[in-house]
Parts: sequence; C-alpha cells; structure tokens
Amino acid sequence: MVNPFFKNYGPFKISEILSILSLNNIEIDIDLKINDVKDLYSSNINEISFFHSSKYKNLAKNTRASYCLTNENLKNELPKDCIPLIVNNVLVATSLVTAMFYPDSINDDFDDTVFEIKDTKLNDKIKFGKNVLIGENVKFGNNCYIGHNTIIEKNVLIGDNCSIGSNCIIRNTFIKNNVKILDNCVIGKHGFGFFPNNGKNLRYPHIGTVIIEDNCEIGSGTTIDRGSMSNTIIGKNTFLDNQIHIAHNVKIGENSIIAGQVGIAGSTIIGNNVKIGGQAGISGHLKIGNNVEIAGGSGVIRDIPDNSKVMGYPAKYIREFLKENK
Amino acid sequence: MVNPFFKNYGPFKISEILSILSLNNIEIDIDLKINDVKDLYSSNINEISFFHSSKYKNLAKNTRASYCLTNENLKNELPKDCIPLIVNNVLVATSLVTAMFYPDSINDDFDDTVFEIKDTKLNDKIKFGKNVLIGENVKFGNNCYIGHNTIIEKNVLIGDNCSIGSNCIIRNTFIKNNVKILDNCVIGKHGFGFFPNNGKNLRYPHIGTVIIEDNCEIGSGTTIDRGSMSNTIIGKNTFLDNQIHIAHNVKIGENSIIAGQVGIAGSTIIGNNVKIGGQAGISGHLKIGNNVEIAGGSGVIRDIPDNSKVMGYPAKYIREFLKENK
Amino acid sequence: MVNPFFKNYGPFKISEILSILSLNNIEIDIDLKINDVKDLYSSNINEISFFHSSKYKNLAKNTRASYCLTNENLKNELPKDCIPLIVNNVLVATSLVTAMFYPDSINDDFDDTVFEIKDTKLNDKIKFGKNVLIGENVKFGNNCYIGHNTIIEKNVLIGDNCSIGSNCIIRNTFIKNNVKILDNCVIGKHGFGFFPNNGKNLRYPHIGTVIIEDNCEIGSGTTIDRGSMSNTIIGKNTFLDNQIHIAHNVKIGENSIIAGQVGIAGSTIIGNNVKIGGQAGISGHLKIGNNVEIAGGSGVIRDIPDNSKVMGYPAKYIREFLKENK
Repeated sequence: MVNPFFKNYGPFKISEILSILSLNNIEIDIDLKINDVKDLYSSNINEISFFHSSKYKNLAKNTRASYCLTNENLKNELPKDCIPLIVNNVLVATSLVTAMFYPDSINDDFDDTVFEIKDTKLNDKIKFGKNVLIGENVKFGNNCYIGHNTIIEKNVLIGDNCSIGSNCIIRNTFIKNNVKILDNCVIGKHGFGFFPNNGKNLRYPHIGTVIIEDNCEIGSGTTIDRGSMSNTIIGKNTFLDNQIHIAHNVKIGENSIIAGQVGIAGSTIIGNNVKIGGQAGISGHLKIGNNVEIAGGSGVIRDIPDNSKVMGYPAKYIREFLKENK
Repeated sequence: MVNPFFKNYGPFKISEILSILSLNNIEIDIDLKINDVKDLYSSNINEISFFHSSKYKNLAKNTRASYCLTNENLKNELPKDCIPLIVNNVLVATSLVTAMFYPDSINDDFDDTVFEIKDTKLNDKIKFGKNVLIGENVKFGNNCYIGHNTIIEKNVLIGDNCSIGSNCIIRNTFIKNNVKILDNCVIGKHGFGFFPNNGKNLRYPHIGTVIIEDNCEIGSGTTIDRGSMSNTIIGKNTFLDNQIHIAHNVKIGENSIIAGQVGIAGSTIIGNNVKIGGQAGISGHLKIGNNVEIAGGSGVIRDIPDNSKVMGYPAKYIREFLKENK
Repeated sequence: MVNPFFKNYGPFKISEILSILSLNNIEIDIDLKINDVKDLYSSNINEISFFHSSKYKNLAKNTRASYCLTNENLKNELPKDCIPLIVNNVLVATSLVTAMFYPDSINDDFDDTVFEIKDTKLNDKIKFGKNVLIGENVKFGNNCYIGHNTIIEKNVLIGDNCSIGSNCIIRNTFIKNNVKILDNCVIGKHGFGFFPNNGKNLRYPHIGTVIIEDNCEIGSGTTIDRGSMSNTIIGKNTFLDNQIHIAHNVKIGENSIIAGQVGIAGSTIIGNNVKIGGQAGISGHLKIGNNVEIAGGSGVIRDIPDNSKVMGYPAKYIREFLKENK
C-alpha cells in the first residue's frame, strides 16, 4: 500500500476495529493498538492485513501483520503470530477497516481547500492562465505551465518542464518531468469501485495515487482513476491519445503508445513497448506482456504473452484472426 | 409527454396549425383553439396528437385528442371524435407542431439567465466552489455540494445530500437524493435527434427531461441527453462509470452497474439489476430485461430477455459465444 | 500544405537546413535561400519538399521544388532541377525541417495571448457567457453565441449564426456559417502524431487547421484534432453526436451523420451522405465512399466503395454479416 496523501486517523484499539466488524466474541487483548491497514506483503507488527484468495498463500505465510481479515478456508495459512479475524466477506471488511483509518479517501467531493493561483507561492514560479485554482499540498518544479480554468486539487506533486492544459482537474497525483497533459483531463479521482448492495451500494476507499512518469503525454478528455490499495501508473515515455479511460490500479509500462478511446479496466498490468490501437478494450486483472501489439477495436479478455500481435474480440493472434476474416 | 420545464406558447387556433403544415383545404372550425400537443395516451379534448405506426393502434383507438396527425393507412383506426390530419411525414409534422407550442425546447444555446451563485439564494444554503453559475428555476435540497466552474443552467431540481463535481453543465434535469455526479459531465442537453435533410437538417424539439433517481453515481465525462417526447431516466442506486453516453429517451432501471465508455442509443429501455461491461454498445429502441449481464465490448442489436448473460457482436448467449471463440 | 496560421520563420540558407539534418558532405550553393517546406504538389522553386513512398511517383516527377528529402531508392524519380537530399528517415527529416520553419506549430501549451472577451472588440458584437476568453487573430461574423468558460484560443475564424457551447476550447480552426458546437469540445489541438523513440518520442509539427463547413453540428465532449501537413475537414451539414474523436487530417464529406462515441483515425477520407452508427471505429488512411452506411460498433479496416452497407469487425457487407451471425 502506497499511501502518501491520506491522513491515517489511527491508531485504533483492536476492540474498536472488532466493533465495526460486529466481531464481539473474540478473546483478545482489547487494548492493543493497531497502527495501520496494509496488504499482506507490506504490513508489520501491530498492523492489520487481509487475505481473501488462495492466490496469495505465499504472501500470507510470511506476513508480519498482527491481525488478518480472512475466512475459515484460508485462516490456517497464516503464521502463528498473526491472529485471523474470520469475516463473511473479506473485501467488505477490509473496506470498512480502511475507511476507518483513511476516511478522507472515500469522499471525492470538490476540493474546498483551493486558492486562486495568484494568492499562492506558485504565482512567481510558473506560467499560468486565467482562473487557475491550487489546492493544499501542491508542488511544481521549474518551467511549468498550467492552462485556463484548470484545478490542481490537493496532493499533486509535479516535476520540471511540465505542461498542463486548460479545463483539467487533477488530484492525488505524482507527475514527473517533461510531462504534457492536454485539455479536459480528469486525473486522480477514485475508481469505479464499490460493493453492489441493493438500494445503496457501498463505496470502498481509494487510498492509492496516480503516478505519471517522465516524458509522458496524456490526450484531451482522458480520465485516469487513482488506485484503491495500490497505485495507477503510466510508465516513462508512454503516450496516450484523446478520450482514453484508465481505471484504478492499472499499471502501464514504458514507451507504450495508446490510441484514442481505448479503455483499460481495473488492475490490469501492461508491459513496455506496447502498442494499442484506437477503441480497443482490455478487461480487468489481466497481464499484457512486453512488445505486444493490440489492433484497434480489439477486445482483450485473456492475458497476452510477450511479443504477441493480437486482434479481434476476443482478441486472438492477428494472423489467425485475419485468416478467419478475409 | 412529461413537460414541466418548457413554456407552452399555446393555445393556437387550429387554422394556425394547419397553416404551418400547409394543409389548407380542410373543412373545419378554424377558430377552435388547441391547447397542447401530446402523445396518443396523454392527450385530451382540444389537444392534438400524432399516430405514425400501427404499433400504436390500441392507443389510437382510445385517444381523447381532438385532432391527430397521421397518414391515409392509419386514419381509420382513430375514434370518431378525433379528426385525422393527413400529412406526408407524421414525425416531421409532429416536430413542426411541437416546435410551435414549445419553441424554447429546440435552442440549446448557452443559458444566459445564469447568475454567480453568491448572488443567489443558494449562497447560504449549499457548499460550493469558485466560479459556480446558477440559472433560473434551480432548486437544491439540504447538504449539497457544487464543484468549481460548474454551471447549473435553468430548470434543475436537486434533492438532499447531492454532490456535483467541477466543470459540469446541467439543465432540464431532476436529481433526487444522495446522488453523486463526478467532474466534466454534461447532462440534460437535447439528444442527437433531427430529420436528415440535404443541405440543412431539421432539428426536432426535445421537450423531455433527465431524471436521476436516489443514490445514483455518474462518472466523469459522462453525457446524458434529455428526452424528446418522454424522459431519460437513470433508476435508483444505478452507478455509471466514466465517459458513458446515454442518449435521449433511454430508461435504465434500479441497481444497475454500467462500466466505462458504454454507449446506449436512443429510446432503449434497460431493466433492474443489469450489469454492462466497459465499452459495450446497445442499439436504439431495444428492451433489455432484468438481471441481464452484458459482457464488456459487446454490441447488442436485439432485445435481451430477463436473466440472460450475453457477449459478442452481435451479442449472443455467453456460453455459445465462448464455445465458438475458444 | 495549407498553412494560414503559423508564422514561417524562413527563409533559411540551405546550409542551415543541411546542418540540422547532419548532411555535411553535399556540394551545393550553401548560400541559396529556401523559402518554405511543402508537399510535392504545392512546392515551388526555392522551396524544399519530401518524397517518402513510391505511391507519390507521379507527383514527384513534376515537382517544382528545388530540393527534396528522399531516399536512395526514390531519388531517381525526381526531375533534374530538383536536388535530392538523401536521409535515413524521410518523415523524420521532414519533421525536423518543418519544425525549423514553423516552430510554433509543435507547442500546444495553453494560449497565453487571451483576453477576457469584455476587453476585446467582440464585446459589442456577440452574445457571450461568463468567463469567456479570446486569443489573437479571432474573428466572428454576425449573430453568434459563446457559452460560459469557453476559450477561443488564437487563430479561430467563425462565420455568421454560430453557437459555441460552454467549456469549449478551440484553436487553429475555421468555422463557417450556422454551425453549432455543444459543450466541452476540444477542437484544433495537434493530433497524436510523433515518431516513437525509446525514452523520448519526437513530436512532429502540425501546421494544418480544422475546417468546419456550413450547417454542421458537433456534439458534447467531441475532440477534433487539426491536420499535420493538410487540414481536418467536416463537410457541410454533417452532424456529429457526443464523445466522438476525429483524428488529424481526416476529411468528412457533406450531409453525413455520425453517432455517439465514433472514432475516426488519422488521414481517413469519408464521402458524402455517409451514416456511421454509434461506437464504430474506422482505421487510418482509408477511403470510405459516398452513401455508405456503417453499422454501430463496426470496426472498418479496409476501404469501402460507394453505396455499401457494412457491419462487423472487420466490417463486411451487412447481408453477409447478418447471415453469418443469425
């Protein structure tokens, strides 16, 4: 869990945590203080973690967390020093605990901490248009530009030689050097993540960020959501065209080229030197290798190994596709 | 016809109506006043209706309208008290008559009635960002937020506990309670509705609204057009992701989940508890049942019965699709 | 090359041009001045052109350019009066030379020449909303409207009876008469054009414009990029729905209808009276004939002859597609 921006409201007594989970009959040291909630790998003593799928057995065996949200089937995989807390739905419980530590990560209402840029220290540092707003914890390097009507909400750290267009809205984002962001982009809002619940869905916290590495370009009208429990990353020298949607937790490698109106669903990982044609869609939780080419309009629903060229829906090897579709 | 927002410029003498339709040789009481134009079901005595397809025979037989725009083939279906007005193109004629009663519904130029929010009664009622504009006939419930640069144009009624993002533009819309609208949305503009006409297309009036029910969420960069002769509706607790387009007259049920970049064409009706994956497209005038799942990237061109899971283009049952596309 | 907006920083001595191309061993009159860079057809004596594909042999034979960037295989096609300059990559070299003559065409940072409209001559001429910004070399005809927060950046020439929505950003664009542009559009930015280069891509200049002819309508959230070496054109009475992306150099004919979320890739040419359904995608460098109908969701990857109806991905004749996909 990378979480530089959201205030940790902990520590909380373990009894308080058990209470919001309605776990009342567990015999434990109810005064023990829990400092944070993290994934299995990152968590430490006096922290709470979560373990919801056998895919993560190896991580679970070595976790240093003092407590872990899990279920009956998985609890025996945890080490002796980690006390399992058995819940009906591990992800819902994790969401409740995360919301307890990081309540600010759920609400994405407009940022009311902003000032007009001329009333901030940036007034003398960067070149900016009319009606630019700047929130708390915003930093810029040298030689940067911000277009008209753009709102840099709280928690945005930008390097040198960056150009942000007009009508953009950015929050909870790291932008490295030589990055160009065109007009009308929305970057760093929470993703489309919630637990469906008849009558009233339950939003889960997004405590991650967006990271845009050196030399990237982001086209007009593109949206990039921040991560939930990890970060959304656009690798070095990767160019995105207009009207692209990058969902939460997506990680794109270096030197990749993504054409207009592409959509990449949550938690998918894309390698280096990947080319994606216009309007292609990639399902969530996939792994696309290095040097992959995905034809425009394709629908990718399975992992793609390195050096492959694919096309179609569902996407298959391009030679095969074209042979079948003469 | 639901039409709470547009001023009715009638009544008009039937002779005036006949004149714009170039129907000059009809023997009628030319001084009779016509109060409104409505669909077959809603219309009443001293109102005019329209009947353009045999699909609506049963409604036609029982209409209370005094006059009805129709064609030679259909005119005998109307009751005796309803005088048929025979025209070449029923929908074009209806459009002309509707434009006569509701001229304000055609023009969607920017709203020049707006004031800065600090100069309105909302100044003390809601929490708002910089540069917020408010048009005529805008009302808000309690505990609402409006982000920076957002324009609430005329005819917008919003309930309690709603959060509108930044850079949004909304008009002719009902938003109920606990609704969240993210940044850069455009809601309530007229749909893509016109009669093609070489050299100069003829726009038809959009006298409907957009209705967004309780507990909905609308993602960034989404566009929702208002209805033409009915309303565009997003049902209770339905969540829309980023960059979705909802065309005019679409009705979506409750508890549905629609992922990024989906497009739904005009007048399609979608049931409750429907899940639609990213980038799926649904043609116009279709009926999608309850509990339907449509895989991401699918193209739906036919009605889908309740409880079905479909995939592909054209979308078919998902088992069949995956069998054919191993 | 149509290039009314960008300042030509030439003439340059041929020796200066050879220097940026690292061509040092060529025996020529190093003091000769070169006035401009143009395509094979448009270029004249004392101008430089480029010839990168045998497709353009016939144009090359008749060029009047004094110099031409080309390669070993093509150089013998040029006339005697045109001196070939042999380079490794003709398009990269052309890009470097174009950037030398037109450096302003590469940088699309926000326009810092804008004034608030009330401080310009347009204050008394047109009807406008709050917070409207106007750049250099912007002209409007009579009876025009500009919505709130819209930025008309430099080099925009607009005719009579045009209505521009709110939150739009427009530059380097000709808009003729009776054109309606809805909210949140971005028009006239450079296209997604660059030479991929590990670590740091090389952008190429976009010295073209966008031309929107009489009676067009452009839907909300649409992006139209300007041309690189030619113009992007939307023909007379063509209507575009919401969230469409038109890439650089695309030319669309008259009386065409393009539904929501369509994407058209770079340099494709589309005829008159064409209908394109929602979410269809058209690859780059194609020719779509007159009176063509492309079904919603189709992916077009080959030229389409006049009067055809196509559907599917890859798009094929609609009867064939529906037969195969009952």
